Amino acid sequence: MKNNNINEKTESRRGFLKNIAASVVAAGALTPAALSAKDDPAIIKETEWGTKLGWPVDKYPYGLPSPYEHNVVRRTHKLLSSGDFYASVAMCPIQDLNGIITPNGLFFARCHGGVANVNPNEYRLMIHGLVEKPLVLTLDELKRYPSESVIHFIECPANGSTEWRAPQFNTLQFLKGMMSQAEWTGVRLKHILKDVGIKKGAKWVLAEGSDNSHMGRTLPLEKMLDDAMLVWAQNGEALRPEQGYPVRLLVPGWEGNLNVKWLRRLEIGDKPWHAKEETSKYTMLTPSGKAIRFFWPMEVNSVITNPCPDKPWTDLKKGDIVEIEGLAWSGEGTIKGVDISFDGGKTWVEANLKGLVLPKAWTRFSYMYKWEGKPILLSSRAYDDAGYVQPTIDQEVKVMGVEAIYHRNAIVTWEVKANGEVNNVQIRS
Amino acid sequence: MKNNNINEKTESRRGFLKNIAASVVAAGALTPAALSAKDDPAIIKETEWGTKLGWPVDKYPYGLPSPYEHNVVRRTHKLLSSGDFYASVAMCPIQDLNGIITPNGLFFARCHGGVANVNPNEYRLMIHGLVEKPLVLTLDELKRYPSESVIHFIECPANGSTEWRAPQFNTLQFLKGMMSQAEWTGVRLKHILKDVGIKKGAKWVLAEGSDNSHMGRTLPLEKMLDDAMLVWAQNGEALRPEQGYPVRLLVPGWEGNLNVKWLRRLEIGDKPWHAKEETSKYTMLTPSGKAIRFFWPMEVNSVITNPCPDKPWTDLKKGDIVEIEGLAWSGEGTIKGVDISFDGGKTWVEANLKGLVLPKAWTRFSYMYKWEGKPILLSSRAYDDAGYVQPTIDQEVKVMGVEAIYHRNAIVTWEVKANGEVNNVQIRS
Repeated sequence: MKNNNINEKTESRRGFLKNIAASVVAAGALTPAALSAKDDPAIIKETEWGTKLGWPVDKYPYGLPSPYEHNVVRRTHKLLSSGDFYASVAMCPIQDLNGIITPNGLFFARCHGGVANVNPNEYRLMIHGLVEKPLVLTLDELKRYPSESVIHFIECPANGSTEWRAPQFNTLQFLKGMMSQAEWTGVRLKHILKDVGIKKGAKWVLAEGSDNSHMGRTLPLEKMLDDAMLVWAQNGEALRPEQGYPVRLLVPGWEGNLNVKWLRRLEIGDKPWHAKEETSKYTMLTPSGKAIRFFWPMEVNSVITNPCPDKPWTDLKKGDIVEIEGLAWSGEGTIKGVDISFDGGKTWVEANLKGLVLPKAWTRFSYMYKWEGKPILLSSRAYDDAGYVQPTIDQEVKVMGVEAIYHRNAIVTWEVKANGEVNNVQIRS
Repeated sequence: MKNNNINEKTESRRGFLKNIAASVVAAGALTPAALSAKDDPAIIKETEWGTKLGWPVDKYPYGLPSPYEHNVVRRTHKLLSSGDFYASVAMCPIQDLNGIITPNGLFFARCHGGVANVNPNEYRLMIHGLVEKPLVLTLDELKRYPSESVIHFIECPANGSTEWRAPQFNTLQFLKGMMSQAEWTGVRLKHILKDVGIKKGAKWVLAEGSDNSHMGRTLPLEKMLDDAMLVWAQNGEALRPEQGYPVRLLVPGWEGNLNVKWLRRLEIGDKPWHAKEETSKYTMLTPSGKAIRFFWPMEVNSVITNPCPDKPWTDLKKGDIVEIEGLAWSGEGTIKGVDISFDGGKTWVEANLKGLVLPKAWTRFSYMYKWEGKPILLSSRAYDDAGYVQPTIDQEVKVMGVEAIYHRNAIVTWEVKANGEVNNVQIRS
């Protein structure tokens, strides 16, 4: 549904500008401890690293994060596993991310039979079925096609799946960490499908992985001829093993599992395949008892990343100005705006979109805020250029019930206590 | 100088469109070995990774590249060291990169006293000198300012420095690997300088590192109030140690060494400091015997990355269509276009700019080409929206001589032999 509260938006824009002005002009609140010895460089104490040689630049041919960042890692949880971590998910620490790129080492990983270690020299991709001229491509042959680079998120449709009945996780990483974003490089599938020659009657494409789960998903030919890609690189380097090295399918904005990894086969046909993973999983049970299959785009969504349960405001002092920040995204288009509520959704003000605003991509939003040390219920609500607005929990449950598991995109609310602690809560009418 | 050969450009554009059409329509040249058993999935042989469990997703909380990519690493060279690798540079494998993001593990690293391992809890940044209210900031205090994320390259002014007299390196990595690009997150310095209150007469800022070289560079206040930033993140995560963890200065488009790492001090003054690194290094000797100091922006530049000596065309067959690809960049603005020559600069055709075209950022260019197995002299020439065009070697040497060491941006030429081998050559009139 569209947001139609125009007056509220106009007011909120004024509020935002006022807040920005406060942060930049009334610097008092931002200015930390002034120097006592005003102009004396000696106040910067000499350090161990300032007096001894560091390590030589040839120590790490492939670099790693600072040892002090050892807590910023992907995490697994038994609630999100099948007893072991071969068919499971490692969650991205989105509470620690900056900007819109996820470093490859932290990109969330979902596997159905463990991470395959594919030998690129033995890699083959077959394209067959309702085609004039079936193909088997080596990796080198695939890379000879004209390449493109695009920035898109990938989100598992189970992101937030634990929250349908009541809050389960009190960390952002476990709540919403089944997503990440990268710059992907590869070839538009339409170029290859042109080469094989699609036969009349073709409507569907089966994408199958070469890992031992042979994960298979059916996709409409229309999407494959639109913006789908075969990608071999993420953030400049070869795909990581857990992202499908050497080649995965990229279907921008659609369910993560459709972006089939370690891709070995594309079969063109006239009917959907009803493969294991699209009947046993990735269907949504509705209140009528019927299940929805083949529901692909990840709907408009958003979440506040500062503060969050993992990054509380316990260090803030009353009167401090702080930047509320978050991520918004939509698999159906470009983020048009994000609203923020301080009273659990009763009233809304408009946030600022920051940096690159790209289609089917994470978009950063921001709101400069003066913390008064009083409890608030902090929510965000995104809307996209396809006309969709994030629903309330009540709105979503009314349509989907609580058994759908997948595609939960209801508004997330953080309870920020007077002492700055943050909890995941659910606002119901 | 501006490119004024309009007719040539018009012709080249037609050539490009024709070539693109050739690649997509006349698929014969692109289409690799067709299947013999046309529609039989069994032709995809079962593999070890298709029949055994992979590794569990909790094996690498911080992920690493595929073991098969072990050759894609930063490299050092004794010609680019001072006898050891504490004051040296590790070159980025730009020949292996895709798109415009460099993964953090491959970002080039230049150090003057080794890589400092800074404890972020002990980190302090002092801002003092000609200011009303000097400041010492902790990392948490710095991060409380409103943040922005921007994509910019960083290039050492010594990139290509070995090539002034004659070709020295026959690999792209050693020739042009002193640069990389990331998405950086931090705060515009102007917000902080507003808080400290710049005094009348202030014109210069000294930026000093906390590593044991205490690398210091003077910058004009004007740039610091324009787009300079204090950044704490690259590609979403904390800065890497070799990029100045926890905080570096970012001066978009200017010499790499000005982007002072492990930043501990900004002093505002009325004169340049003439610090060690800006007198003993980073000055350019001209033919008159005078040295140029304080010459900051990295000029418009480009290089072809496919093919290159590290990635020859020895596997190509006559008639194959291949994508010539490269990187173009300018520290003075946005890349407006790139020309390609097949005869060492006598005639030029226009390449296609791909993906995001951002100011002071790497821009990818591309040209679809039919390889006829005949020797060519392949060059690229970029121009930016500030009105600059990459010079020929003769033009650059006429102005700068051969002792400048820094800021070499003359056109690079690859000799592609009939067998597909590629060599770094220099075209002189």
